[in-house]
Amino acid sequence: MTALVTLGESMAVVAASTPGPLAPGKPANLSFAGAEATVAIGVSRLGHSASWIGRVGADAAGTMIVHGLRSEGVDVSHVHVEPDLPTGLMLRERRTADHTRSAYYRRGLAGSRLAPGDIDERLVSSARLLHITGITPALGRTARDAVRRAVDIARRAGVVVSLDVNYRALLWSRDDAADELGFLVRQADLVFAGPEEARLLVDEAPPEETAQALTALGPQQAVVKLGAEGALAAIDGAVLAQPPVPVTVVDPIGAGDAFVAGYLAAYLDGASPAERLLTAATCGSFAVSVQGDWEGLPRREELSLLTGDDVIR
Amino acid sequence: MTALVTLGESMAVVAASTPGPLAPGKPANLSFAGAEATVAIGVSRLGHSASWIGRVGADAAGTMIVHGLRSEGVDVSHVHVEPDLPTGLMLRERRTADHTRSAYYRRGLAGSRLAPGDIDERLVSSARLLHITGITPALGRTARDAVRRAVDIARRAGVVVSLDVNYRALLWSRDDAADELGFLVRQADLVFAGPEEARLLVDEAPPEETAQALTALGPQQAVVKLGAEGALAAIDGAVLAQPPVPVTVVDPIGAGDAFVAGYLAAYLDGASPAERLLTAATCGSFAVSVQGDWEGLPRREELSLLTGDDVIR
Amino acid sequence: MTALVTLGESMAVVAASTPGPLAPGKPANLSFAGAEATVAIGVSRLGHSASWIGRVGADAAGTMIVHGLRSEGVDVSHVHVEPDLPTGLMLRERRTADHTRSAYYRRGLAGSRLAPGDIDERLVSSARLLHITGITPALGRTARDAVRRAVDIARRAGVVVSLDVNYRALLWSRDDAADELGFLVRQADLVFAGPEEARLLVDEAPPEETAQALTALGPQQAVVKLGAEGALAAIDGAVLAQPPVPVTVVDPIGAGDAFVAGYLAAYLDGASPAERLLTAATCGSFAVSVQGDWEGLPRREELSLLTGDDVIR
Amino acid sequence: MTALVTLGESMAVVAASTPGPLAPGKPANLSFAGAEATVAIGVSRLGHSASWIGRVGADAAGTMIVHGLRSEGVDVSHVHVEPDLPTGLMLRERRTADHTRSAYYRRGLAGSRLAPGDIDERLVSSARLLHITGITPALGRTARDAVRRAVDIARRAGVVVSLDVNYRALLWSRDDAADELGFLVRQADLVFAGPEEARLLVDEAPPEETAQALTALGPQQAVVKLGAEGALAAIDGAVLAQPPVPVTVVDPIGAGDAFVAGYLAAYLDGASPAERLLTAATCGSFAVSVQGDWEGLPRREELSLLTGDDVIR
Amino acid sequence: MTALVTLGESMAVVAASTPGPLAPGKPANLSFAGAEATVAIGVSRLGHSASWIGRVGADAAGTMIVHGLRSEGVDVSHVHVEPDLPTGLMLRERRTADHTRSAYYRRGLAGSRLAPGDIDERLVSSARLLHITGITPALGRTARDAVRRAVDIARRAGVVVSLDVNYRALLWSRDDAADELGFLVRQADLVFAGPEEARLLVDEAPPEETAQALTALGPQQAVVKLGAEGALAAIDGAVLAQPPVPVTVVDPIGAGDAFVAGYLAAYLDGASPAERLLTAATCGSFAVSVQGDWEGLPRREELSLLTGDDVIR
Amino acid sequence: MTALVTLGESMAVVAASTPGPLAPGKPANLSFAGAEATVAIGVSRLGHSASWIGRVGADAAGTMIVHGLRSEGVDVSHVHVEPDLPTGLMLRERRTADHTRSAYYRRGLAGSRLAPGDIDERLVSSARLLHITGITPALGRTARDAVRRAVDIARRAGVVVSLDVNYRALLWSRDDAADELGFLVRQADLVFAGPEEARLLVDEAPPEETAQALTALGPQQAVVKLGAEGALAAIDGAVLAQPPVPVTVVDPIGAGDAFVAGYLAAYLDGASPAERLLTAATCGSFAVSVQGDWEGLPRREELSLLTGDDVIR
Repeated sequence: MTALVTLGESMAVVAASTPGPLAPGKPANLSFAGAEATVAIGVSRLGHSASWIGRVGADAAGTMIVHGLRSEGVDVSHVHVEPDLPTGLMLRERRTADHTRSAYYRRGLAGSRLAPGDIDERLVSSARLLHITGITPALGRTARDAVRRAVDIARRAGVVVSLDVNYRALLWSRDDAADELGFLVRQADLVFAGPEEARLLVDEAPPEETAQALTALGPQQAVVKLGAEGALAAIDGAVLAQPPVPVTVVDPIGAGDAFVAGYLAAYLDGASPAERLLTAATCGSFAVSVQGDWEGLPRREELSLLTGDDVIR
Repeated sequence: MTALVTLGESMAVVAASTPGPLAPGKPANLSFAGAEATVAIGVSRLGHSASWIGRVGADAAGTMIVHGLRSEGVDVSHVHVEPDLPTGLMLRERRTADHTRSAYYRRGLAGSRLAPGDIDERLVSSARLLHITGITPALGRTARDAVRRAVDIARRAGVVVSLDVNYRALLWSRDDAADELGFLVRQADLVFAGPEEARLLVDEAPPEETAQALTALGPQQAVVKLGAEGALAAIDGAVLAQPPVPVTVVDPIGAGDAFVAGYLAAYLDGASPAERLLTAATCGSFAVSVQGDWEGLPRREELSLLTGDDVIR
Repeated sequence: MTALVTLGESMAVVAASTPGPLAPGKPANLSFAGAEATVAIGVSRLGHSASWIGRVGADAAGTMIVHGLRSEGVDVSHVHVEPDLPTGLMLRERRTADHTRSAYYRRGLAGSRLAPGDIDERLVSSARLLHITGITPALGRTARDAVRRAVDIARRAGVVVSLDVNYRALLWSRDDAADELGFLVRQADLVFAGPEEARLLVDEAPPEETAQALTALGPQQAVVKLGAEGALAAIDGAVLAQPPVPVTVVDPIGAGDAFVAGYLAAYLDGASPAERLLTAATCGSFAVSVQGDWEGLPRREELSLLTGDDVIR
Repeated sequence: MTALVTLGESMAVVAASTPGPLAPGKPANLSFAGAEATVAIGVSRLGHSASWIGRVGADAAGTMIVHGLRSEGVDVSHVHVEPDLPTGLMLRERRTADHTRSAYYRRGLAGSRLAPGDIDERLVSSARLLHITGITPALGRTARDAVRRAVDIARRAGVVVSLDVNYRALLWSRDDAADELGFLVRQADLVFAGPEEARLLVDEAPPEETAQALTALGPQQAVVKLGAEGALAAIDGAVLAQPPVPVTVVDPIGAGDAFVAGYLAAYLDGASPAERLLTAATCGSFAVSVQGDWEGLPRREELSLLTGDDVIR
Repeated sequence: MTALVTLGESMAVVAASTPGPLAPGKPANLSFAGAEATVAIGVSRLGHSASWIGRVGADAAGTMIVHGLRSEGVDVSHVHVEPDLPTGLMLRERRTADHTRSAYYRRGLAGSRLAPGDIDERLVSSARLLHITGITPALGRTARDAVRRAVDIARRAGVVVSLDVNYRALLWSRDDAADELGFLVRQADLVFAGPEEARLLVDEAPPEETAQALTALGPQQAVVKLGAEGALAAIDGAVLAQPPVPVTVVDPIGAGDAFVAGYLAAYLDGASPAERLLTAATCGSFAVSVQGDWEGLPRREELSLLTGDDVIR
Repeated sequence: MTALVTLGESMAVVAASTPGPLAPGKPANLSFAGAEATVAIGVSRLGHSASWIGRVGADAAGTMIVHGLRSEGVDVSHVHVEPDLPTGLMLRERRTADHTRSAYYRRGLAGSRLAPGDIDERLVSSARLLHITGITPALGRTARDAVRRAVDIARRAGVVVSLDVNYRALLWSRDDAADELGFLVRQADLVFAGPEEARLLVDEAPPEETAQALTALGPQQAVVKLGAEGALAAIDGAVLAQPPVPVTVVDPIGAGDAFVAGYLAAYLDGASPAERLLTAATCGSFAVSVQGDWEGLPRREELSLLTGDDVIR
């Protein structure tokens, strides 16, 4: 039995090492990324078993992703290898120290071929949590159907469903996204969204009201992620505010997914709503304190580093 | 008037800096590559004007390619920017110090959209040399037609046509390649091929006979590139052997294109066949002495560094 | 016709990669720099043609400078190569993260040999803007005369003259500088100066009054650059304040020249005084967000990155 | 059921990145190493399940080792974490490009605390192969007893026992080593040794006779590793010579362990003696073609890269 | 005659170059560190002769330490080389940009073998200052006796004794530390302590009272180091507050030892208490502005860089 | 008493880290170099005291040189700091892996100001060996006079004089060099020269005869350095050939100076001619096995690494 199951696309990442326009000779670093993979790694580092379902190519990038997830203890036995398509790739320019711009090589590649047949019923139905994002259904029809099938299995088995809205304007239209995400949020027990993303589902309003409006759609837990301003949540009828945990920012990417990972791990711990949000904010701060999307995520014994009395020596 | 005109695809290159499997955190270097771009840069460094025709995306990779070519003095005024497609990309793993493996992200991307309308008649007809490769017609129908149109303009204007067979098995079948390359070689005045590639056009035979057989198809100059063993040419009826120019190899990629650049630059100089081959071999050795496809190409005043009496101090 | 013409010295730069005293084994990065070259690159990236006049040595550093400027689209057809003198060089120690100390190798070297004969009358007289700095006349007598000749041609042809005071105490005395810069400012239509530099020309006063006092010397536009506090300008009789555009600082060098580039590009656009100052401040912030003097300068489509709604994705 | 079980010590490795004496500011790379861990990784990359038993500290180095092994698919569920002792560490100076010198921090640290209780009877008795080395019994009395217990379990269960002599003069005396290794070789079915090491067990003789003499002690398979000269084996009564597989050497460390990994994986495949030796030599060459002890080891589909017709592309 | 004599342990340092968990392939930098070595280097850079007494192994790390100290002009003629023990080592993970975690390899190694016989009576008795820290007596009995012997010689010869409390909880218990440090502080003329450390010796109180209470134990000068909040001192009966000197922090480690170095150098200059504290705070800021414990320490002519009018150029 | 005294110029070195033309962003490494400094360091590492006399600027490069020499135990108490001139600098492009090209910034800078007054009579007259090169007298008239003065003191005091011809065509004409070097060789007891350099002094001939001809000018020991072919010497009437010591070459620069250092150190040891040549060749091989001119030089205990039985472990 795996505590958390998630599904989606992971891509190779080529990230320029220093700020400035791309140029011949510029150094870069390799890694991989994917919103759901980050959540799986984060939950695993905090001590709960996690499984990631997805497709990668039969190439060096695909091997890197499988090895990387396995290194973190994430179950990769449900990863499918596409023999004839390359693994997706993201080329990241750090245009300034604060602004990253990415070119995506993903359309029609291995990750987007995720299909309902990839979803193992036994795996999903025996999990405690299914986590999905709004990226996966935007990858194509079969990927959308895979998400629906996973949600369907989960609901029938009484598995808690978590949805991170994660709207990607490059992948589909607002209307298509609103339709599908509207359908998914109604199946979900937990929902995470940024203020902009939430407008796909509910009317514009202050974060507090947005969170409450999201719960009116079905989920008992709705968290509005406010970036550098923390988060605001409506959980089991109560509204809670979570300020950010202070840290020196090295790379802002991955904060939102790390936040979700922290929340879900604490939820699996049986922690209180306030503890879930604090763990979430702590994980978000860990993520941005290290280069890469998931590399900085905390292990359980490290959580107190940012919030406790640990001082440098 | 531009001395050499060439057309094709250039892609961003992400090359792992050290040998070994790709892994999170592994360092890489950015650059760009393209067989025809390497020829244009090589000819330009040796003092002849060169123009490269191709399409790039409106992204950081495309800007890098245009800047890089311009930096080398290559005319980029006929480069077309595709507003909605990314620039192609190549991810290179150095599996061992000797073995490179690449994943290509090029299908359907900006570079493959080259089309006949991109070929400026005035530019081509006023050139002294048109250089084409067997890669471009393999990119798609419009790219093939662009090559044909360029050749057609050149022949009508009495411009010398150079063809590097450059067979890419990933892009098209042997049969398709044999057809199109068979057509092109008959229009060409110069032809370059490896022994394997030559078999698309002529029967298997020792390099000497292969070179002669290629001239029987039309070209007055045929060069069989033998890699670490140098080259063997049939030029204006005579057969010449060119041994390699010794150098410490840093990165074997790009040697063949550098060879062609050297040959064509010397041809534009009015050099003798033997001098052309020596310049070609020298350029090949320069290319492999530096990381990257074109970065190591020599400027005219540097040619004597490998072959002359210059010693280290 | 080139929109902007400028002249001066560009030097190779060796900049220690990390803060701390120089030591054997310390890593560094190569580049090149020059106040006028930065302005030319900045104007070119923003879409206006620019030409840089100067002398470099027949060495690797000189080639790097010519290639670098050409890469950025700057016209280098008026660069002169000195056969027997090395290109100047600057060795930069980052003593702390905030303090850079440079050793200059420039006296008597190629760049300082700039002479009146290097100034092409046709080039200057057909430009829209001539930009000069107070560094060039300090390089030596022939360089001073080259500046005077350029200004003379410009004025006779009705070309707008821009002067950045850029006083370099290492190169000449305050008195010599005050004499020559006093002469030049009276020929200029635009003048840029820091508060300290302005005292060479006008009495000490608050920035606002300083700007106005500078216009009293002749220029219709005077901008007092205040570094981290922005700028204060007197333009066509009106006084404008420009706050800085916030950004994470990676390398503070080059901000002033980037500011001038932005101002002049917007002036060439026909932008209003307030828009000129905003573009100037934006370019200054881009420059300091990336290592190097000019590497971070924005292309036109990037300008909105710092001031607009673009968020990290 | 795990195909191969092995036990021993893994240490963090700090390896200077470039040749030369250690000095402040010199760059280094982190990794981990251990003869048995290299064998486990090599066997796992070639497609057989492998389990590594050992102790690491509750520190960053220990986490790195566990993650690294898990990344490679090696079962780490029998790794014990010592709460109060640091993980061992090796500091490697590359004194020249050809000569590495290591300082060891291992005495009394976590890895040397391996004890009989760490050996899971079920794990060992259900394996197909138990692999041990002469390093582990040299770590201390409890480690020696752990090895004996593992061998005892294996022999009783009919599990094939493989021994790499791996004599470490820093850890124990020749006499102690000869005693214990003499005992172990008599329990083994396969034995690997260098010519020097073999003298602990048999009289000095040419490699061919050495291999045969080793089999006279009990093992049916004895391989004498000859480094750059390949290997010589006595297998099931026949003598076989294996020349080295040519490759550019990047880092000579790890070749011997990679050789063993290749041999054992091929043995698990049911390959012939000659195939075992070829796979062994191929793995040795892969290992030295990449920096690090195990990083370069081949996956099954890569084996043909060095020995087949694959050419650079 | 050496102005300052100090004694203690110096260790090799392996510091991960970038934030994040240790992982195979992660880059690191080598250096060395030791509280007393940092003080000796700092005092030497500020122009006073300094001698460091300690033991290192006969290995690359030991050579690096001796060379590094000698490079800085520190007298190393009283360093003893242990033939059979490795030099201690510290492995530093930068878990986030703000949090460093170190694993220590020092127990029983060369540095901890410091013994009374290592203390040259002539060297100590002819010095102006003896500086000791609370780390050295915690290394073991012989090291403790070496400190006592040095203090004894100093007091008999009228040499000023400086003590930095530097309590290391990993090395000894609070009780043992309180005993020995209580003994040492009574012999000292100057004492430095953090607020936490001071509680080993005096009752908890605000820093001002703490400083005064420390002087009540004997020293005429007591400085309470408050990290980012500066320092508070009781010197010759007067209480002085020293705010921190602002600087961009690159690496917070080493600030305290740099502070002591600055204070002692100014004391050797004959500077006033206020000047001593300002020099101390300036040195602390220099130290944190550069990677490494001592690399950033200022030379005398650099002191004004942070506090004077020097601006970036 | 210092065993070896030498005098000359040391310069900062900026060496591109990777082969290829210089370009913005290319990484480089800082160090320093000087033929005489390399000899001093080499002799010091092999256990004899050495003193280097020269001038450096009051800048970061000068400090780096003094620290670097002091780090190696070289006496720098006779180094003079020029307050107003920068330290010389060398910019090294590695055009290919085998060919380095340097631009020199030395004319009129601090190092060339060496003057007779810098030569301390007591230092020179109490040495066992004075080592000079043909570079120093080429730096200018005062430097030439400083060399003459040093030689004069040495001869009067019976100090052995060693001369490395080291002809630098960029610094003076063949005729001037032949005059001055002809004068110096007649004062020398030992002379080192390459075959080309020797022709300044003796007629062209095979190396064996060249060595003998050099001794006919005065020196009892003459060594002709043959680079990759070793050396040929005429010592005390006998002719000896020294083959090179095999090693993987990382950076060929510095081999000749390292050879001299090894020879002189062995001479100071009282070693036989054959031993001197072997030590010389070993040092030459160490030097080229590491990046930089002197960084790879061996310490005494390391000499056996290349020639002995040490194997990699």
